[in-house]
Parts: sequence; C-alpha cells; structure tokens
Amino acid sequence: MALPKRHEPKRHEPKRREPERHDPLPLPPPPDIVRAAYAELVVTDLAESRRFWVDLLGFVVTRADPGVLYLRGYDELIHHNLILRQGAAAAAARLAFRVRTAADLGRAEAFYAALGARTARVPADATPGVREAVRTEDPLGFTVEFFFAAQYAERLQQRYDLRRGAEPARLDHFNIVVPDVRAAYEYYRSLGFGLSETIEDGDTLYAAWMFRKQTVHDVAFTGGDGPRLHHLGFFAHESHQVLRICDILGSLHEEFLIERGPGRHGVSNAFYVYLRDPDGHRVEIYTSDYFTGDPDHPVLRWSVRDPRRRDFWGHPVIPSWYTEASTVLDLDGRPRPLVPEQQPAEVKVGADGFIP
Amino acid sequence: MALPKRHEPKRHEPKRREPERHDPLPLPPPPDIVRAAYAELVVTDLAESRRFWVDLLGFVVTRADPGVLYLRGYDELIHHNLILRQGAAAAAARLAFRVRTAADLGRAEAFYAALGARTARVPADATPGVREAVRTEDPLGFTVEFFFAAQYAERLQQRYDLRRGAEPARLDHFNIVVPDVRAAYEYYRSLGFGLSETIEDGDTLYAAWMFRKQTVHDVAFTGGDGPRLHHLGFFAHESHQVLRICDILGSLHEEFLIERGPGRHGVSNAFYVYLRDPDGHRVEIYTSDYFTGDPDHPVLRWSVRDPRRRDFWGHPVIPSWYTEASTVLDLDGRPRPLVPEQQPAEVKVGADGFIP
Amino acid sequence: MALPKRHEPKRHEPKRREPERHDPLPLPPPPDIVRAAYAELVVTDLAESRRFWVDLLGFVVTRADPGVLYLRGYDELIHHNLILRQGAAAAAARLAFRVRTAADLGRAEAFYAALGARTARVPADATPGVREAVRTEDPLGFTVEFFFAAQYAERLQQRYDLRRGAEPARLDHFNIVVPDVRAAYEYYRSLGFGLSETIEDGDTLYAAWMFRKQTVHDVAFTGGDGPRLHHLGFFAHESHQVLRICDILGSLHEEFLIERGPGRHGVSNAFYVYLRDPDGHRVEIYTSDYFTGDPDHPVLRWSVRDPRRRDFWGHPVIPSWYTEASTVLDLDGRPRPLVPEQQPAEVKVGADGFIP
Amino acid sequence: MALPKRHEPKRHEPKRREPERHDPLPLPPPPDIVRAAYAELVVTDLAESRRFWVDLLGFVVTRADPGVLYLRGYDELIHHNLILRQGAAAAAARLAFRVRTAADLGRAEAFYAALGARTARVPADATPGVREAVRTEDPLGFTVEFFFAAQYAERLQQRYDLRRGAEPARLDHFNIVVPDVRAAYEYYRSLGFGLSETIEDGDTLYAAWMFRKQTVHDVAFTGGDGPRLHHLGFFAHESHQVLRICDILGSLHEEFLIERGPGRHGVSNAFYVYLRDPDGHRVEIYTSDYFTGDPDHPVLRWSVRDPRRRDFWGHPVIPSWYTEASTVLDLDGRPRPLVPEQQPAEVKVGADGFIP
Repeated sequence: MALPKRHEPKRHEPKRREPERHDPLPLPPPPDIVRAAYAELVVTDLAESRRFWVDLLGFVVTRADPGVLYLRGYDELIHHNLILRQGAAAAAARLAFRVRTAADLGRAEAFYAALGARTARVPADATPGVREAVRTEDPLGFTVEFFFAAQYAERLQQRYDLRRGAEPARLDHFNIVVPDVRAAYEYYRSLGFGLSETIEDGDTLYAAWMFRKQTVHDVAFTGGDGPRLHHLGFFAHESHQVLRICDILGSLHEEFLIERGPGRHGVSNAFYVYLRDPDGHRVEIYTSDYFTGDPDHPVLRWSVRDPRRRDFWGHPVIPSWYTEASTVLDLDGRPRPLVPEQQPAEVKVGADGFIP
Repeated sequence: MALPKRHEPKRHEPKRREPERHDPLPLPPPPDIVRAAYAELVVTDLAESRRFWVDLLGFVVTRADPGVLYLRGYDELIHHNLILRQGAAAAAARLAFRVRTAADLGRAEAFYAALGARTARVPADATPGVREAVRTEDPLGFTVEFFFAAQYAERLQQRYDLRRGAEPARLDHFNIVVPDVRAAYEYYRSLGFGLSETIEDGDTLYAAWMFRKQTVHDVAFTGGDGPRLHHLGFFAHESHQVLRICDILGSLHEEFLIERGPGRHGVSNAFYVYLRDPDGHRVEIYTSDYFTGDPDHPVLRWSVRDPRRRDFWGHPVIPSWYTEASTVLDLDGRPRPLVPEQQPAEVKVGADGFIP
Repeated sequence: MALPKRHEPKRHEPKRREPERHDPLPLPPPPDIVRAAYAELVVTDLAESRRFWVDLLGFVVTRADPGVLYLRGYDELIHHNLILRQGAAAAAARLAFRVRTAADLGRAEAFYAALGARTARVPADATPGVREAVRTEDPLGFTVEFFFAAQYAERLQQRYDLRRGAEPARLDHFNIVVPDVRAAYEYYRSLGFGLSETIEDGDTLYAAWMFRKQTVHDVAFTGGDGPRLHHLGFFAHESHQVLRICDILGSLHEEFLIERGPGRHGVSNAFYVYLRDPDGHRVEIYTSDYFTGDPDHPVLRWSVRDPRRRDFWGHPVIPSWYTEASTVLDLDGRPRPLVPEQQPAEVKVGADGFIP
Repeated sequence: MALPKRHEPKRHEPKRREPERHDPLPLPPPPDIVRAAYAELVVTDLAESRRFWVDLLGFVVTRADPGVLYLRGYDELIHHNLILRQGAAAAAARLAFRVRTAADLGRAEAFYAALGARTARVPADATPGVREAVRTEDPLGFTVEFFFAAQYAERLQQRYDLRRGAEPARLDHFNIVVPDVRAAYEYYRSLGFGLSETIEDGDTLYAAWMFRKQTVHDVAFTGGDGPRLHHLGFFAHESHQVLRICDILGSLHEEFLIERGPGRHGVSNAFYVYLRDPDGHRVEIYTSDYFTGDPDHPVLRWSVRDPRRRDFWGHPVIPSWYTEASTVLDLDGRPRPLVPEQQPAEVKVGADGFIP
C-alpha cells in the first residue's frame, strides 16, 4: 500500500529576463497604473446579491441607490471596490484601475487610440465616488476604466465591531479568461505590468500573474474561451477569515457556493477559497502572498505538470473552475462574443466531468 | 448561471433516546474504559515511518528500541499513543484503551469470556511503559487491549520550543471499518460507550461516533469490508496547526500524502485533515469538537443525503477514503480475513473511480 | 545592556500524591458533580449588561424575561450558562453545578447537612430551564446550587452565521476568592474534585485548580478577602477568537474593559484574556488547556517565584486583578461579609498601586 | 464598581495635506528609495546572537563568515535583511535602503553633499551579497547605506519545512530615536517618503510613520535622546506566528526577552510583539498593517491622549520601551554622541519606574 513519490520540482529562475520583442511601431507611453481598484458586476437579483456580498461575505456598503450598490473592503479608502448593478443578465460590465495622476487619463486615451481601441471619456461623478475617467475596449476584449481622482471613504480597518464574514480588506486582483495567454501577457507588459509567476510547458504559456502594486498580481490570465471574467480576488489578513466564510456558508446550507478550496496556492503562496455569488460570479478570498516591489523582481515559473501549481497540497481542481466564467460587456453594455481558446487547455476535462 | 439551492436540513434530536434492546442473557459488567490510549501499527520501513511521524508530523519519541518506536503527543502523560513496529507487511496490530482501575482487567476477561471471545493476559512491561494488560479478539474482529497502570512520561505541552509539524497533542480516537455498523454500535453500547452522532437513512445506520471520554468519540465506525482500521485520529489545538502540516508536505513535494482535507466535518464539527503514512496507514489531525460529558448527552443524527455530513463545506470525499484501510491482526499477529459489507455502501464508487 | 537570565524551573511532580488527612467523622457521600454549569450575576443596568455580554462578547440569549436574561455559549446544550438579573447592587448570586443523577440532589442535602450548612430545595422551573435543585451556603461562604434535570436548548456550534465577538462556547470554570486556599482545597477534595495545578511555596498554598469534568478546572481558588467571585471562565476554541474581542473593544473605545491579557497562562497553558463587564464582574475567555480524565492525573506545582505561573510570557499581573472581585450573596440574597485573607498575599501591591 | 468610560476619539483626516515649507535653496533630487532592506548590528557574543535570531526567532542564514552572520526572512529574495557582527560593544552600525536604479547611487552622493553630509562609496561586494553602495552620515546622525544591485538568494516562502519561531518573512521597517521628531519628518519628506500616521498634540509631533514601499512604514521616529536605533521591525504573515515566539521563549524560561506585547497597535493596526536580543537590541514581529500605495494616501493622526495609539487594547507601555535603545555608529564605526530630546516626552516615566 506504499505510495509512490512524484517529483516535479518547481523551477526558481530568479535571473532570467523576459525576451525583448521587437515592436513594429513604438507606442505612446501607457498610463501609470497604480492598482486594480474596482469592478462592476451586473446581477439579476440585487437583494440576493446584497445578502451574499454584504451580509455573508462582509463587504461594507458605501452607497446604495435604486438598482445599484457600491461596496468596499474594511481597509479600503476609495469609495468602492465593487459595484453591483441590477440587470437582466449576469455579466461583468467593467474592470477599473486607478492611475497615478490626472494626466494619466490623457495618456490612456492616446495609448489606446494608438492601439486602435475604442475609448470614451466619462465625466466626473457619472460613477458616484469616481471623478473623471477614461474607458476603453481593450485589445483583449475587456471594458477597462482608468480613473485618478476619487472620493475617499472612511477606512474601517479598525472598526472590528463592524466586521463580518470573511472580513474582506480590499480588492486584490482581476483574473480574466483569455484565448491566448501569451498575447495577454504581451499586452499587459506594454502597460508596464511586472510578471511575478507563470504556469508553462515548453513554449506554451498556460497562465501568468502580473502586477503594478507590490503584490503578486493586479491581473492574472487563465486560458480559455474569452474574453470572460474568471474571478475577482479580495485580500483578507489571515487564514482563519477564509475558514470562517466557509463555515458560515455551511451553517446556512449554502455550501454549494463554495466552489474550490480552502487551500494553499502553489502560485502566489496565497491561502484561498473560491466562492460563487448568486449569479455564478466567482470571488476569491486571498491571503498571504508576498512583496514584489523590488527592481527586477524575479519570475517564478511553474511547470504545468507540477500538481502543486494550482493547489500546493496537490488536490485536483474542480472542472467548473476551468470552464465557467462571467460574460463581459462592451462599452455599450452588450455581451462580448467569445473567441475560442487558441492554445492547449491546461487541463482536459473528460466527458464524465472529471479531470483525468 | 444561477446555482440552485439544495436543502437537506440536518436533524437535531436532542431528546430522542436509543431504543432499549432486550438482551437474551445478561452480560457481566464491562471494564470501565477511560479513553482510547494507543495503537500499534506494523510498518515496513521504520526509518521512513519515523521521518513521517516524528520529523514531519511532530510526534515525540518516548523510547526507541531496535525495530520499534514509542511515540506520544505533546499533551500526553502516558508513555505512548502510538507504537510503530517494523514488520514484513503493513497492518494494525492492536488498539488499546485505558481502564479506570486495576480491577477492570479482571472485568474485561470475564466480559469477553461471556462473549465467547479469546483473551490473553499480558504481563507488566511486556509493552514498555504499560503494566499488566488484557487483550482480546473482540466480536468485531479487532485485537483490543485494556490496561490500567502506565509509566508516566513528561507532559510536554509547554515545551513549545520542541514542537514541530501538526503539533499533535494526544490520541483522540480510533475509526474502524466494520461490515455491520449497527452491530458495532450495539457492541460498543454494551461496553458503556455513549453515542454522539450518526449518519443514517431510514433503518440503515451508515456510521456512528461513540465516546467514553468527554469528547465526540473514542471510536467511530465506517461501513465496509472489515475488520480494518480506517484511521487514527489525533487532537491538535488550533486549525493553523492542521494547515501547517499540509504546507510542510507541499514544501517537500509529498503533497500526495494529503488524502482529504483540510476541511470542516459536519459530524463532530472538527477541523480536519487526513494523511497517509508511508505504508498507507491513515491518520487524521483533528481539532474543535465539543464536550459530551453531560448525562443524557443528546445524539445528533445526520441524513446520509446531507452533503455536509462528511464535509461541512460540501466537498465530495475522495473514493480512496471510503475504500482503503489497514489490515488488522489477530492475537497471534496473523491478518484477519475480511467479511464483506453487510449493508448498503454510504457512497457508490463508479468504475471511473469517482463518486456519482 | 545584556539582560540577565532568571531561572526558576517549574516543578513537574507527576507521581506525588496529596497527603491523606484524617477526618474526625466520616461525611456522607457527596453529590456526583458533573461540571460547572451556570452562574447568576446581579447587574445594575440590564440593558448595558446585555450589550456587553450579548452584542459584544457574543453570548446567545436563550430567554429574556423582564429584568432577567438567560444566556448560553454556542456549544452549550443546557438552557443557560449565565443568568443576568437586574438589581440594586452588583453581586454574584450563586454558582451552579450539574450533578449526574436525580438522586444526587438528596446526597447534596445530606452532605451539607452533615457539614452544618444551611440548604434549600428549589422547585422545578423556579429557575427557567432548570428542574428541581438544591442550594446551600457552602463552608466557604458561597451560595452553590446543584441540579440534575435541565431543559435542553439547541446546540448552536454549527451556526457560524450567528457567531459574534469571542464566540464563547461554554462555561468552563468558576474562580473564587477565599481567605484560606488550603481550606478551600480540602473542602472541594471532599466533594470529589481532582487537583490539576497549584501555586505554592513551602507550606503555603497560594492558589489551586480543581476539576470534575476532564479539563484543568471547574473551580479555582485565588487567595484574598473572601468569599468573593474572582471571575467566570468561558471556553473558546481558538486564540484568534480571544484577540477578536479585544479588537472589538478597542474599536469601540472601550479598551478599558480589557483588564489583563491576552496572554498565555503558565498554569493550565490556556490562552486567555480578562475583561470586566459594566458592573466590574470579571470574565475570562479561555482556550487550549488539556485533558485531565486519566486516573491519578498528576498535579503540576508551580513555585510562587516562577514569573511564568500567572503569565507564561512573564508579564506582571495588574494589581486590580488580585484585589478586585465580586461580592457574593447568601441564600437570602444578602451580601456575605468578608473574612480577611488568612495567608500571605501572593503578590504585595504597593501604595503606588504597582506590584514590586 | 462600574468603570467610567474615557473618550478620546482618534482623528481621521483623510484630506488634510501637509503644509508646504519654503526651502531656502532647492536640493538636488534624492535617490529613489525602494524600501528598507537591511541593518547591521554589532553583537558581543555571536554564538548567543545566532541562537536568538536563528534558532529561536527563525531567521535563515544566507552566509556565515568568521565573526559575522548574514540573515534573511523566508519571503526575502535579497541576500540578507540583517548582518550580525561580533564586536566589543553592542551597537547599530548602519541602516540600508535599496534604491531603484544604479544611477540613484550618484543621486544619493549629490543629495547628501548638498546637505553637507559626509558620504563614502563602498565597492561592490565589500558587503557580501551587495554590489556598489553609497554610505552617509545623515542629518539625523545615522549611518545610512544605499545600494541598488544585490545578489539574490532563494526565496524560501514555500519551504514550510524549514520554518521556525516567528517565521519572519522580511524586514519591514526601521524605528529610530530622534531628539526632534518634526526635523526627522522634514528630512525624510525631502527624501520622498510618504507620511502614513502620526502621534501629536497641538504643535508637538511625538512620533511619525513614513513609507516608500506600499505599507505603513519603512521608517518611524520615536522622540528621545538620539540618534539611537529603537527597533528593527520584521513582517510575519499571521498573528499565531507572533504568539508562537512568545510561547517558545516562555518554554525556555527566557520570557524576560519579551519586552512588550503581544498586542494590537493603534497606529498601523499591526499585531505586534517586541523582543530584546541578548545584547538588548529590540526587534518587533509585526503583522496586518495596510496598503498605502494610492496617490495622496491620507494621514491618520492620533492624539497623544488616546490610550489606544500605542496599544489598541489600552495597555500601558513598559517604560524601558520609551527609554532604552541601541547606540548607533558613525561611518568610522565610532559611537555617535547623544543629543538630548528637544521636545516634551510622549510619556513621563516616574522615579518609581512606572508611567503615571
């Protein structure tokens, strides 16, 4: 009954640099992005969504208007990390980054114009709490917003009396599904993002984690039919907060909302759980990654054959995690058509629904 | 993409009493059992086993003789909770309970004689650290030992400087595979064990948890071909200790030794992980159950259809957890033949190896 | 600037037995006590007390009558662990133990009659949730109640959705201030309590911890002018729950209610914090002690000169912790007069309010 | 016995800007500092120090030369966070910051030349693991080093099998004692540091926390006779790691090395403990502060009269924490003379050694 050992050591390559590509025409400078700041999700039953995100998960309501909620984490100082908007069909309407200066809005317009991407100026306070902004349909097919000035909310980190659920602190990252992970990497590299970790095999890049703030990522790419939003990742401070939200969902017999985990990621080292909201939007509670702020932060490359890459404890990933994701909307609020995955799937899901 | 809700509420039945059976002939009084005290496992490579149980899991070595190790947890005051003995084939040699007085040894002999079970007196110190003992081949087919007097070892609870791994505190329980769970329940009831929780459906009893000490169990029954040892459960004080041993195994690329979990049990409420030792013996690290010492402690009955019974977060149980278990030895050290399961399987494992 | 080392090793004496005293006349058998079950506190502003015990600390309200609240912890199955009764002056009205059988009520009456102590039968449901009971003014001056039958409440351990504050699980122990610790020890020994730990020096017994259930204590003695109630100790499952209640009190700028800790006890090994309720009643949140259910459980004796005995991290104890305690009431609800401490104080508190 | 409430609400002032000072002559641009990177401490018994920092606290030894050790945390990728050098008298030899580019070394030279501060170029590898560097005697009297290129070590975050003690992850900050906190603030502002929190009262600035990386601080100022090093702060990921090192020190009867805490800071929100190494150098283990990377991150100003500013749970600070600190050395390795505190002491320590 002795168990055989499997050895697929992960490769630490602290000094390898990314190969320089020859760009045909130089792009104008990109906006100086500070961090992933907020997302807007369309939900089909706002009362149900409020119960999930606020009452159970523990988000703070900054503002509630008819048909729309503005939520933030306990450490957050900007107005919101998440907008939930009532709509006919569930979708991810946009992903928003904060930029360093007001001048970066103009840089964003010029940058995307040079890429041939459609852009739009959004007047101040069109979104409550957010001043003037620029939106674009980015080359990957996502509606992305850039804003500088924001209305500050009270940072509630030390209001432990108000905390509930997973005690989400702040938005940490966007994980997006893209048909071509290498193309997504190249595009975000052109935006000035650093690369922290990858899953790869030979020439195939299966997944990549990229950052502006000094953590493992502000954005990550999962290969698949895209563009779709894979999940929103929110930071919590300690692992017991991740366990607590699972216990709460079990208590309410809503354990089916726990899709995957809790567990330890190989990539990022984070302790995690993935939940699904009432519309199926996926949310990760995430803690214990690491500082990436040093110049020339080295890339950690995982082999796609290392069973610890997605779960450091070697547990298989449930198929839905690879196959299901949220529809994304264009600048006009219409669903984006899907482009089929352009590369081998990271994991083949069999007819029986399980991963061989 | 909205997810349907499943509602299978667990049944709290605090006041229901177990039905009284009419025993044809009264048995002599059973020994007054205090608690599950230790187990002896036969292992095929003692050096490998020492590495797993001592270096990784964190057990304390009370004594090391050629071919045999005596281990205990950090809170323990008796000589050992686990004996590892080098042998040709992996097996569970015996399960030992401590009794309240020296006179209980004679009671054990009389009780098992009345049951027609073979017994043997073991002279003092035949097992280091254990004085005189009585062993029997119990009606379920397990070799069980009863002892009263023991050599005390230093309780190392406050030697935090020595702690490693999962910081196991003490043996908590034996989980055994039996072909007829109701028969096992009846037998342990005759030994004076209390019933804390069950998994059942109509007339079928799929699993039961029974106790002498004031916790959820000293022994539990899993339905299957038996007699076999399902696992040894060791208590740890906090959930982060359960997470730590998983992280350590991932670090060493021995994550394949993590069979199931970490997770929260529905039954017992314990936070758990199941590991497999180098011979495949299963060990549980277990924390946060509850006090059962009140008179007429009520039974908590779970429906076999409640997906939270085995994992409060609703995750399916890996098939090996239901099907694999350790061979047990008779009083002469020979493997016990298996009796096929006498009741419906709790979970049907399909040809593809997965649970429908 | 090098710091000198102080070495006062604690004394583990696993085999020493307590000296047998020669009792002049044999007492009738004492009631078979199961555990510390509940206490009744008189509070001067029930709304303020409810806010502290329920809204902040997290107790569950089993029943609320005009002027009186019945509270329990999340793991508890009896009706209450704490009664809060509105009154003119703060006091501890009684301490209640659960006994093993109905017949133990009669045993209690006979036992205390033989001691010359005044007793009273309390009819069923005079206290909601508690059937017939016996109360006495015990030889130490405390009003103590014994009951067997109780109304069971729903055990809410797995209602994580309801948990708040420190998530108290159950009453763990009473700590009482007595002028003569050795006399208190002798009395509780006659009631069948086991001794787990002491603080002593030569012939002086400064403090002792005694148990019926299989934990470090159901009752402990602190030397001082008595009888007074030092504190009620409630069990929580993990240390982060102890930290959380402190964070909550800091958030509300009620940090002055945190009297001592959090810290690790030397005695008992428990991770602890002491809070003061709005009337100054002291409550401990307590986790991670150990199993004491084995026969002949050895006594751990701490030297009064070991700075780790009260705080394993060596922090001095705030003077109020030694000097302040709750008045106790007699069977008629009148405050008991104080007897001055009969032994040297464990710690001398100077005129400046600090411990030399 | 009711306790009075004290209300000194902290002041959140998210929009207040620091007043702009009129600098007489413009300084050249400062070096672009990335973060606090390492410190060098002189210790009097390197074997004792190794036991404390490596065996107990859990630091990783990157390199050991005769008379000198190079240590790092588990998340760290540069060669070291701490140099321990054997010497005749305990002292802090230097504090080192990493800069963003090689060109920042020249900027540092020009910047300090303009300030009239003595500087020195240090050739590559004069310090193992550090390439070329610039050192200066800064205007506050500290020897500070700037380096860009460093030898990378293996990041051991996922070697849980190697972790010990407090599992320190990385250097977080320097806390320095300065006679004039406002002057220190002005100087670090000129270096481009952001201000996260203060302790103040009217015009008096008692303490300030300033950052380059996206956390609460890389450097903080404590008022007192200076220049001296108050402490080195190291980041850990979870609070149970802070508790563990205290338990270990208690186990070894070295609890006297725990000077203050564990506790929750008001300022920074961090869960902390302060230890003293065998030479009295103070070290903080620190977890759970917050992200400060947004543009115009607001300043949180604490009143010196809020008892939660230093300990969110209101516990008084032990006097030694305010009065004791490490001597610092000049560029030639000679102790710097002390300048008396130029402002009111934050806390007056009475003749009896206690804080009124």
